[in-house]
Amino acid sequence: MEDVMLFGMVISPFVTRVEIALKLKGIEYKYVEEKAGNLSEKAIKYNPVYKKVPIFVHNEKHISESIVILEYIDETWKQNPILPSDPYEKALARFWSKFIVDKLMNAARKAIFYHDEKELEQGIEETTVALQLLENELKDKFFGGDEIGIVDISAVIIAYWLPIIQEAFGLKLFTSEKFPKLYNWSQDFNSHSIVKELLPPRETLMTNYKGVYERHVASK
Amino acid sequence: MEDVMLFGMVISPFVTRVEIALKLKGIEYKYVEEKAGNLSEKAIKYNPVYKKVPIFVHNEKHISESIVILEYIDETWKQNPILPSDPYEKALARFWSKFIVDKLMNAARKAIFYHDEKELEQGIEETTVALQLLENELKDKFFGGDEIGIVDISAVIIAYWLPIIQEAFGLKLFTSEKFPKLYNWSQDFNSHSIVKELLPPRETLMTNYKGVYERHVASK
Repeated sequence: MEDVMLFGMVISPFVTRVEIALKLKGIEYKYVEEKAGNLSEKAIKYNPVYKKVPIFVHNEKHISESIVILEYIDETWKQNPILPSDPYEKALARFWSKFIVDKLMNAARKAIFYHDEKELEQGIEETTVALQLLENELKDKFFGGDEIGIVDISAVIIAYWLPIIQEAFGLKLFTSEKFPKLYNWSQDFNSHSIVKELLPPRETLMTNYKGVYERHVASK
Repeated sequence: MEDVMLFGMVISPFVTRVEIALKLKGIEYKYVEEKAGNLSEKAIKYNPVYKKVPIFVHNEKHISESIVILEYIDETWKQNPILPSDPYEKALARFWSKFIVDKLMNAARKAIFYHDEKELEQGIEETTVALQLLENELKDKFFGGDEIGIVDISAVIIAYWLPIIQEAFGLKLFTSEKFPKLYNWSQDFNSHSIVKELLPPRETLMTNYKGVYERHVASK
């Protein structure tokens, strides 16, 4: 009997990444909901470096950083692989998984939390370029081919979170007109039988991000 | 006959990472020096997303992002492994490799390019915390144990670049008094027979970073 635990927060796309991988592989796990800004002692003990969820614990061994956790899960449970086996294909999958946050979401963050008009324009421009690069990269139904892979899982933040965040902030970054392939992918991905069960309610996220928006405007 | 190429810049620690891995494994490669801010057409063609070195090309297949390249090299040429084989040890190695830039160098960057006293203090404090975490993590001669591994290679920026950068900027972030274990490690690492051959001349880096410092001060 394996002991698998996940410390998470319902609003975190990084936690949802880990949950999708676990469910795809049919791994049973115990989920512990943490509070933002007030992590439990146990969670802090397991991730003293970042004090952040997701924290994944397998037989008392704890791992943080969602992409590192995804790779560990894929290496430990071989069924339904989420990374390609060919080293070059694997390198490309790692590159694009990293791109989602390093490039795309960082650009989007600039547009969302801009300090002046120039930064807003720059953020929109950079997000558009990054979304176009991702759109061009989509060759099949999913980034993983016929099945969901690590790039799809990493991009849950684009498929489900970004449309809600941009609505809360009154922005139009990711639209079906500008990115038709990526938009169709997001619909397929969000309605995938395993993914849709794990996505938090739209209303929960909308309330959260409207709150973030109001605090951001008030602080200006 | 394999075709291995590396597009680099002599002052980039991310390029040196790749070179250390290649030399450790005894891989012959062709090195192409690129110019900062003026990448060759070929390099841009190979890395249109980031337009940055290092760019690694193996039999016409190109990869960017130094950590992604290191993993590819380790999977393609099995001799002298730089990643552990155990999945949990591998996850930890990936975590700390990522930590070097995500946490430690981002904190140092804040201290280096501060806008006001508050940011400077915060940057110094965060860098100190991050260096202490790394110091605590060092259990053997190298992070990889008796031999150099991916965390050591990733941390070349701490071992060799950071002391030069802090001197150019008149800062004291990484000192032997505050971090004796990490300091000893940096001496062992920098004098390792393979590493020392690949480190750029101290004077070249110092001239570069003094220039960066002067432009930074002038822009204030």
